[in-house]
Amino acid sequence: MTSPIVAVIGGGQLARMMAPAATELGLTLRVLVESPEAAAALPAHEFVVGMPSDADAVAQLLAEPRPVALTWEHEHIPVSVFEAAQAAGVPARPGLEALVFAQDKIAMRERMTELGLPNPDWAHVTDEASVTAFLDAHASEAIVKTARGGYDGKGVRVISSAAQAADWIAGRAEGGPELLVEQKVPFTRELAVLVARRPSGDVAVWPVVESIQRAGVCSEVIAPAPDLDPALASQAREIGERVATELGVIGVLAVEMFEAEGHLVINELAMRPHNSGHWTMDGSVTSQFEQHLRAVADLPLGDTSPRAPWTVMANVLGGARQDLSGALAEVRDPGAKMHLYGKGVRPGRKVGHVNVSGVDQQETYDRAVAAAAIVREGAQQ
Amino acid sequence: MTSPIVAVIGGGQLARMMAPAATELGLTLRVLVESPEAAAALPAHEFVVGMPSDADAVAQLLAEPRPVALTWEHEHIPVSVFEAAQAAGVPARPGLEALVFAQDKIAMRERMTELGLPNPDWAHVTDEASVTAFLDAHASEAIVKTARGGYDGKGVRVISSAAQAADWIAGRAEGGPELLVEQKVPFTRELAVLVARRPSGDVAVWPVVESIQRAGVCSEVIAPAPDLDPALASQAREIGERVATELGVIGVLAVEMFEAEGHLVINELAMRPHNSGHWTMDGSVTSQFEQHLRAVADLPLGDTSPRAPWTVMANVLGGARQDLSGALAEVRDPGAKMHLYGKGVRPGRKVGHVNVSGVDQQETYDRAVAAAAIVREGAQQ
Repeated sequence: MTSPIVAVIGGGQLARMMAPAATELGLTLRVLVESPEAAAALPAHEFVVGMPSDADAVAQLLAEPRPVALTWEHEHIPVSVFEAAQAAGVPARPGLEALVFAQDKIAMRERMTELGLPNPDWAHVTDEASVTAFLDAHASEAIVKTARGGYDGKGVRVISSAAQAADWIAGRAEGGPELLVEQKVPFTRELAVLVARRPSGDVAVWPVVESIQRAGVCSEVIAPAPDLDPALASQAREIGERVATELGVIGVLAVEMFEAEGHLVINELAMRPHNSGHWTMDGSVTSQFEQHLRAVADLPLGDTSPRAPWTVMANVLGGARQDLSGALAEVRDPGAKMHLYGKGVRPGRKVGHVNVSGVDQQETYDRAVAAAAIVREGAQQ
Repeated sequence: MTSPIVAVIGGGQLARMMAPAATELGLTLRVLVESPEAAAALPAHEFVVGMPSDADAVAQLLAEPRPVALTWEHEHIPVSVFEAAQAAGVPARPGLEALVFAQDKIAMRERMTELGLPNPDWAHVTDEASVTAFLDAHASEAIVKTARGGYDGKGVRVISSAAQAADWIAGRAEGGPELLVEQKVPFTRELAVLVARRPSGDVAVWPVVESIQRAGVCSEVIAPAPDLDPALASQAREIGERVATELGVIGVLAVEMFEAEGHLVINELAMRPHNSGHWTMDGSVTSQFEQHLRAVADLPLGDTSPRAPWTVMANVLGGARQDLSGALAEVRDPGAKMHLYGKGVRPGRKVGHVNVSGVDQQETYDRAVAAAAIVREGAQQ
C-alpha cells in the first residue's frame, strides 16, 4: 500500500502525539528531530536527525518519496524551510503568510487590530522612553514581550518600570528580538478555542475551554469552560474561526484569550496542536493530533463533539519522581488516561499529561489532578 | 527516561494497533515481524525481522535491555519461544499452560467440559468411521475442524458426509493436525465477550457484543449486543471471567459464543486482542490494545465502560479499491473513526476497520457499514 507521508519538524511531545493518529489513519509520519533521543523519535515512522536550519536535514525530510505536506510542532521555522518546501513541491502548512502571525507578536497585534478583533492596549517599543510612556498610561503596570522566540512564560515579563526591561531593550539594539508592551488585562480567567482548517476552507471548532496557568505554564484545562456565558462562548468560537479564515491558517490553530469583565481579549496564537487541546485525545470524537494531520493532508475534518460532559486535562510537570516508568503502576484510577512523553524529568518540564472524563465537574477535576500528582511525586506524597 | 519494553510476536494489524497505545503509556514496543513491510513494522518502536521459530530472531527480541513481558498477536507460538523467554527471565504472557487452550481446540473442548462450561456436542475424530458415527447422531450435519492452525474460517468445514473430510483425515495420518467434529449449533446469532486479566488476578470485562460474520469472517460488531437478555449478558460475562481465571490467562481473552434458543454455547477462544474488540478503540474508555499492554506489563487495568450508547465496528475487507491511500479523502462522515492497517489489498483480506459511535443503533450501524464500503469500493460504488 502506498502510504501518504506527512513530514513534521520538531521532536517534542506534540510531534510524538501525532504518531498514533498517523498510524490509525494509515499515514506515514516522517519527523525531523533534534536528536535520536527526542520524544518523537521512538514513535515516529521515519525520522531524520537535524535542526530546521540544517539544509541537508530538511532536504532529507522532503526527499522522495515526497511528503504530501510539511508541518511542525512549534513556530520557530526559518524562511529557508519554506523555500526548500516550495522547491520540492511540498506544501508547507500553515504557510509562512499565516505562520508569521504566530511567530511575531507585533505582526499578530497589528493584524488583530486590522481585523477589529479584541486586543489589549499594546505598543511596539524600541527604547526606555516608549516603555515609560506606556507604563504612565497604564497605572505603572504592563507586560513586556519579545516579539519572537517566547513560549511557556519565556519572553514575557511583568514590569512596573522601564528599567526592568533594560536588558531586553539593550539586546534589541544589538540585534535581539523586537519588543512590545501590553496592558496587564484584569482577567478573571483564561480561555482557549481550538480550530482546524483545511485548504478547502472547511473549519471545525472544538468547545471553548478554560486554561488554568501556574507560573506562566498551563497546569490544567477544563473542557468545556465552566459556566461560560453562551454569548461569550459564541464570540470565542467566532474569533477562532475568523482568525483561522482571515489569516489562511491550515492545520490546528489555538487562540488563547482572557475573559475580563464580560468580554474577551486575545492573548496569543499558536498554529499547531496546543496544550489547551490535549483534552481532545480522550474527550472529543476527534483529537487535535488527528485533526491537524487531516487538515494539513487536505482530508475531511473530523467531528469535534465532546465524548463526555466534562473532560479535564492535568499536565505532569517534572517533580520529585525522576523515572516515570514506575508511575503507571501507581495510578489506580481506571479512568485516568495517561499520556507520557518519554522525556527525561527536569523540574517544571512538561513530561506527560492525564485526561479524565466524567459527569461531575469537580470530581473529574480532582481525579485528573490527583493522577497527575501521583505521576509527578509518587503515590506516597 | 527508562522506558519499559514490551516484546510482541507477529507483524499484523493486532501488533500494529498496540503501538499507539504503547506510545501514550510511555512503553517501548519491540515487535518480531515477518518482514520489514509487515503492518506492524512501521509504527513499531523497535523491530526484529524473523519468524517465531527462528531462535536468533527470538533471542534479539528478548535481548538487553530486557522486555518486561513477551506477548503476541496470534496463538501460533512454538514451545521454543516459551523456553527462550524463560531462559531470558522474561515472562511470556499468557503462559503456555493457558495458551494451549487457544492453540488446540481439542484441549479447549476438554477443558470447557471439565469446567462445566457450555460446549456444543463434539468428538475427537481419527477416521472416517468416527466422523460418520457423529454425523449419524446429528442429522447428517456437523462441523469438522483442525485442532490447530485455523483462523478466519480456515481449518473449519461444514460437512454432511465423512468423505468431505477425507483429505484432512488422510493428512492427520501423515502428521497433520488432529481433528474434531462439532454439532452445527442452531444459533440465532454470535456473541463475544472480551476480558482482560493481569497477574494479580484482577479482571476487567467489556460489554458483551454481537458479531456478524459473513463467509466465516467477522464483518461487523455491534456493542453492546442489541436486545440481549440481561441474564444471558451476565452469563456471558461470567463465562469470560471464569475462563480467564480458571485457565490463568494474562492479557486479553476473547470468548466467541453462539446464542441458541435462549442459551449460550462457547465457540472459540482467542488469547490476544481480537477483531470483536476493535470497537473498544473508540467506543470504550480503555481500548483492548491498551488493556492488553497493561495486563501483560502487570499494570492496573483500565475502565471498560462504553463511551456511547452504541458503537459499531465494520471491517474493511479487500475489494475493488487497490490503493487505500485515497480512501480517507472520500469518507465524509466526520464521526467515522478510520483504522487502516497499511497492508496491501487482496480480496477478502482484512485491511482496516471503521468505528462509529452514536445514540441510534440502526443509524450507527448504517454509518459504519457505509464508511467501510467507501474505503473498500470507492465513493462511486
